[in-house]
Amino acid sequence: MSQIKAGIINVTGYIGAEIARLLYQHPQVYLQSVTGRSLAGQRLGEVFPNLKKTRLTIETDIDKNIDIAFVAMPHKASVSIVPDLLKSGLRVIDVSADFRLKDVSEYTRWYGFEHTSPELLDNAIYGLPELHRSDITSALLVANPGCYSTSAILAMAPAIKEGLINSDIIIDSKSGVSGAGRTLSLTNHYSEVNESVSAYALGGHRHQAEINQELGLLNTGSPLAITFVPHLVPMTRGILSSCYAKLKNNKQLQGSRVIDEIRKIYADYYKDSPFVEITENPPKTKHAMGSNFCLIYPTVDIINGNLVVISCIDNLVKGGAGQAVQNMNLMFGLPETTGLETLAIYP
Amino acid sequence: MSQIKAGIINVTGYIGAEIARLLYQHPQVYLQSVTGRSLAGQRLGEVFPNLKKTRLTIETDIDKNIDIAFVAMPHKASVSIVPDLLKSGLRVIDVSADFRLKDVSEYTRWYGFEHTSPELLDNAIYGLPELHRSDITSALLVANPGCYSTSAILAMAPAIKEGLINSDIIIDSKSGVSGAGRTLSLTNHYSEVNESVSAYALGGHRHQAEINQELGLLNTGSPLAITFVPHLVPMTRGILSSCYAKLKNNKQLQGSRVIDEIRKIYADYYKDSPFVEITENPPKTKHAMGSNFCLIYPTVDIINGNLVVISCIDNLVKGGAGQAVQNMNLMFGLPETTGLETLAIYP
Amino acid sequence: MSQIKAGIINVTGYIGAEIARLLYQHPQVYLQSVTGRSLAGQRLGEVFPNLKKTRLTIETDIDKNIDIAFVAMPHKASVSIVPDLLKSGLRVIDVSADFRLKDVSEYTRWYGFEHTSPELLDNAIYGLPELHRSDITSALLVANPGCYSTSAILAMAPAIKEGLINSDIIIDSKSGVSGAGRTLSLTNHYSEVNESVSAYALGGHRHQAEINQELGLLNTGSPLAITFVPHLVPMTRGILSSCYAKLKNNKQLQGSRVIDEIRKIYADYYKDSPFVEITENPPKTKHAMGSNFCLIYPTVDIINGNLVVISCIDNLVKGGAGQAVQNMNLMFGLPETTGLETLAIYP
Amino acid sequence: MSQIKAGIINVTGYIGAEIARLLYQHPQVYLQSVTGRSLAGQRLGEVFPNLKKTRLTIETDIDKNIDIAFVAMPHKASVSIVPDLLKSGLRVIDVSADFRLKDVSEYTRWYGFEHTSPELLDNAIYGLPELHRSDITSALLVANPGCYSTSAILAMAPAIKEGLINSDIIIDSKSGVSGAGRTLSLTNHYSEVNESVSAYALGGHRHQAEINQELGLLNTGSPLAITFVPHLVPMTRGILSSCYAKLKNNKQLQGSRVIDEIRKIYADYYKDSPFVEITENPPKTKHAMGSNFCLIYPTVDIINGNLVVISCIDNLVKGGAGQAVQNMNLMFGLPETTGLETLAIYP
Repeated sequence: MSQIKAGIINVTGYIGAEIARLLYQHPQVYLQSVTGRSLAGQRLGEVFPNLKKTRLTIETDIDKNIDIAFVAMPHKASVSIVPDLLKSGLRVIDVSADFRLKDVSEYTRWYGFEHTSPELLDNAIYGLPELHRSDITSALLVANPGCYSTSAILAMAPAIKEGLINSDIIIDSKSGVSGAGRTLSLTNHYSEVNESVSAYALGGHRHQAEINQELGLLNTGSPLAITFVPHLVPMTRGILSSCYAKLKNNKQLQGSRVIDEIRKIYADYYKDSPFVEITENPPKTKHAMGSNFCLIYPTVDIINGNLVVISCIDNLVKGGAGQAVQNMNLMFGLPETTGLETLAIYP
Repeated sequence: MSQIKAGIINVTGYIGAEIARLLYQHPQVYLQSVTGRSLAGQRLGEVFPNLKKTRLTIETDIDKNIDIAFVAMPHKASVSIVPDLLKSGLRVIDVSADFRLKDVSEYTRWYGFEHTSPELLDNAIYGLPELHRSDITSALLVANPGCYSTSAILAMAPAIKEGLINSDIIIDSKSGVSGAGRTLSLTNHYSEVNESVSAYALGGHRHQAEINQELGLLNTGSPLAITFVPHLVPMTRGILSSCYAKLKNNKQLQGSRVIDEIRKIYADYYKDSPFVEITENPPKTKHAMGSNFCLIYPTVDIINGNLVVISCIDNLVKGGAGQAVQNMNLMFGLPETTGLETLAIYP
Repeated sequence: MSQIKAGIINVTGYIGAEIARLLYQHPQVYLQSVTGRSLAGQRLGEVFPNLKKTRLTIETDIDKNIDIAFVAMPHKASVSIVPDLLKSGLRVIDVSADFRLKDVSEYTRWYGFEHTSPELLDNAIYGLPELHRSDITSALLVANPGCYSTSAILAMAPAIKEGLINSDIIIDSKSGVSGAGRTLSLTNHYSEVNESVSAYALGGHRHQAEINQELGLLNTGSPLAITFVPHLVPMTRGILSSCYAKLKNNKQLQGSRVIDEIRKIYADYYKDSPFVEITENPPKTKHAMGSNFCLIYPTVDIINGNLVVISCIDNLVKGGAGQAVQNMNLMFGLPETTGLETLAIYP
Repeated sequence: MSQIKAGIINVTGYIGAEIARLLYQHPQVYLQSVTGRSLAGQRLGEVFPNLKKTRLTIETDIDKNIDIAFVAMPHKASVSIVPDLLKSGLRVIDVSADFRLKDVSEYTRWYGFEHTSPELLDNAIYGLPELHRSDITSALLVANPGCYSTSAILAMAPAIKEGLINSDIIIDSKSGVSGAGRTLSLTNHYSEVNESVSAYALGGHRHQAEINQELGLLNTGSPLAITFVPHLVPMTRGILSSCYAKLKNNKQLQGSRVIDEIRKIYADYYKDSPFVEITENPPKTKHAMGSNFCLIYPTVDIINGNLVVISCIDNLVKGGAGQAVQNMNLMFGLPETTGLETLAIYP
């Protein structure tokens, strides 16, 4: 098979740069063109010295002689360029939120803008391969999930699909700072973040919309009521989500073997998903650092009958660039794991 | 008033050393004697260079010519020495768990040992001044609360006392590594902890026993069902607890003003507590670093009707040594804040 | 004695805020007025929650009904306001570089601007109490030293004053990130700095000018040739400077007792300096965190005959705000240590 | 070519585990056997979850049906097993210091033991490919360099080989904590190391012996006098070495173009070394994280005529496991870069 020719629009953020790193190492891809308005003309290796070997120069406009465009623009900016890329016959993986939500009114509500291409929302596939693998295979436009969303949805999908829990769910997520991107702000200023933990977006975080949507699609019981609270922790990479929900009052879910039962359900649910691992011990984010794995540890607070699920990812890999490459592999008929086999770096 | 003569038993852990730091700076205290078996004979300033100015030498046995002994032994070790100290006429503040629980069987269950002085449990006062101020004033034996317990109980006490919530409570706590003490273990090994978040004690953490006890005492509704999950985050000091519970279906707790209502209830509950601050914005642990403050931010997930309370402390100060000094102040009739007025260090 | 009335101009940087913290806790000072142009009108506690108890509001202009103004403006901005403050009869401690250098041409060379009040340079006292204690006592204008300069000068002053070394000196300093201030830049962006060490200003760092000046004043041998290289390390507070110079070929400085000899010279040099401690073991920056101490460890690479001196400070305290308060104490006839007795926080 | 069968003796330290990670990903290697006395019987993935996919079990004794053994034992332990491995016909890469030094008396002096196989020292090749590439190609026993040594030697080799500098050299190195290994000690205890920088081994660090040896071999001038001081910085991976030496009084090394001259000399010296990169800007350790690169930035303090060279490596990759794999590639006739092409992870 000949190489897939790929381009990255807006390579100058952390997700864009991480896609470049992964594509450079991908045996079936030739990274042809990268753009980034404010830094156009600079060599990519000047901006990100780790990418020096790519020998790429940042361009103003994408070279359209490619098979696939990775769009790493902020939300609202993506929607203004993706339609053109599609019209040019390119396949597109968009890492912004602009094509993740099916209900167009959610954009007004959560993102504060009127979506200008609502007709594309139906055909855009939510790029979580573990849930939508087969649709991704034939997709022209994939909406790459948010980092929090990836960790939360993968943690709760089996429980909801199998009807294990009641509708009230608490998702308490802890993220490294790179999730906030490369744009300067006091929130990311070293001395403000270091040696400190904080909760934020207590009035509602945007990723909640896609968590609701995707878990809702799996749900056959009463509507879910998900409280999602993100936290910032002083590290660069990693998300750990702790998810809590009351187990249903089923016979199956009682007694001393409930944890084993649930572990079996989870293992079964993900048996064909090479990047999800049901761990034997509570994982730490470092166990996933630099890799595309999602580590999931489901257990039960026996006294109170609560399901507790811990999930860990690298927010820039499985929570972003790695997942995008996984989606690309599916779209081009490659094994899902191609170019993504590297193990986590430890310690 | 003459100086209070104080001693610290087992000064060589982080809590012991922090008590020494605070007592050295306390205008009404003379720190007379410190012990630490394995390091006896060494100067305190050799073990902890920041304490050099105390000019103390670590002794094998406490000099009993003191008014109060701070016991910073591990659990199970405290119970074997506290009775003697009391018989010698000393007042005692014990920072271990050995006198925190009223129900003696809880020691077997959570700590795995048979309590040898159950008769003391009735008279020991749980040293959370915000809940037991007046009892502490006349106490001979104060059981200093656990660090997680302090952050969790203070966060939820007003809601439970005022009957705002249903009985299911999730407490998701994030702690800095100093909470795990100075004893060597892979869990505290720099390269294993750094750049990583993890959940632990998923089968049940010991502090849960005191959280249940203290919140249970405030509760007048159906029995509480508290799921408590501690997490380790890569920083030295600080605990942030995120607490979740469903608001009761009251008129009072509906509509757009519910957050204001709840903030008022919280402010009122703590109006005489100088170290609790109801913050206007979500706090971060760094805002409490080095200080005895507990910062509490109560809010509501309006969509789902969930109370969400964030609390922040310095685990070694309000979660340990500072609270012990606060208790001492009360026991000796001093203003609660004496020697504890320092502001948090920022950044 | 009545309280000293103090004001802080530009309280919104880290040094300004740290001065506010220390003055609030100072038993002889009333902090009357704080300014900060861009945030004027906000409460200080909104910007820095740890300072909430000061109950101060940030003003546009300083209330001149004060005894002393701490000027925490950036360089070049200070020189335009300090003359007026002096004319108003205030004493001034300026934390910028604008009055540190005696040779006016150095401002053109290192700071790139023409100094507009060269006549003040003669009377401004370089505020390193360990070198200029008596001059500070009667000063109207004190130029508070730079953070790197403090650590470097204190480390090398005894060796130069006593003629122990040849003229070539290497100063390799490692600083926490707070030294770079609160202004946003990629250099301070969490994900760029965390888990990384770097050297910077390899073409020459501005603090070198004052290091040259002050060590030069002590030098009676051939002119010093100082290579100073600052490094950024991933922590918030602290500077460690490692200083290297060839010992002179003296009898006194040979043989196995040379280290003891040198330690004696250092201890003697600083015998009246309450904030300098000659440590028995190599110090770490954490031993000074939050305190005004400078820890100095002089030793010798016996094989090569090189003096090696390690010094540690908290860059925001002894390297900034604490030193400013120490200078104020001297200017107002207070004991040098008033309000600065707090021990380092550890761990 | 058939796969190289490899074994790792003592896989349970950080270097051993990192070798396993790299060999697992190496296209020409089959990792057949790993040992670790204290943890024998456990699966490798239990001890290091990132290595789960290797499906290896830790054995007590190495399976000798291999082509090459990586020995990751501590010094003094290696020398007692390497001779047997060689007799069994295996090629050996030893990551301890036991075969790095040519002068057997250095083991008594620096490591405090009598070397029991001095006859092997002559044939052991110091495994720094940039200096000994051709000897490594035919070596049976390679002594993998120390982490500090790698960064220091590569930084100074061109300057010494080309006779640019006088004999006095200062090497000030800053290392992440993983360099201290996985063995528990207060030195590696999170709360003691975090937010702190310290100098250590001020009486002489063992890596100095190999630095002296290797730079001495390149030196044709008067004997080198190297002062080497290592520092611990709060991060997991990375070493930055700052090296200082006076430039010789040559015509070639004067004037404004001296920096360009020196950069050219460095670039030329390493022109055939794929893992050394002469950077255009001062590098940070993060630019090498997870990769086998050594980034070198040579410059000059023009005022004082000092050469200043900054070098950065990942201490566990180029400073350990990666270099071992690079040596293996050379020993088996593979391209030097095979299996080591991954770019640094950033941020």
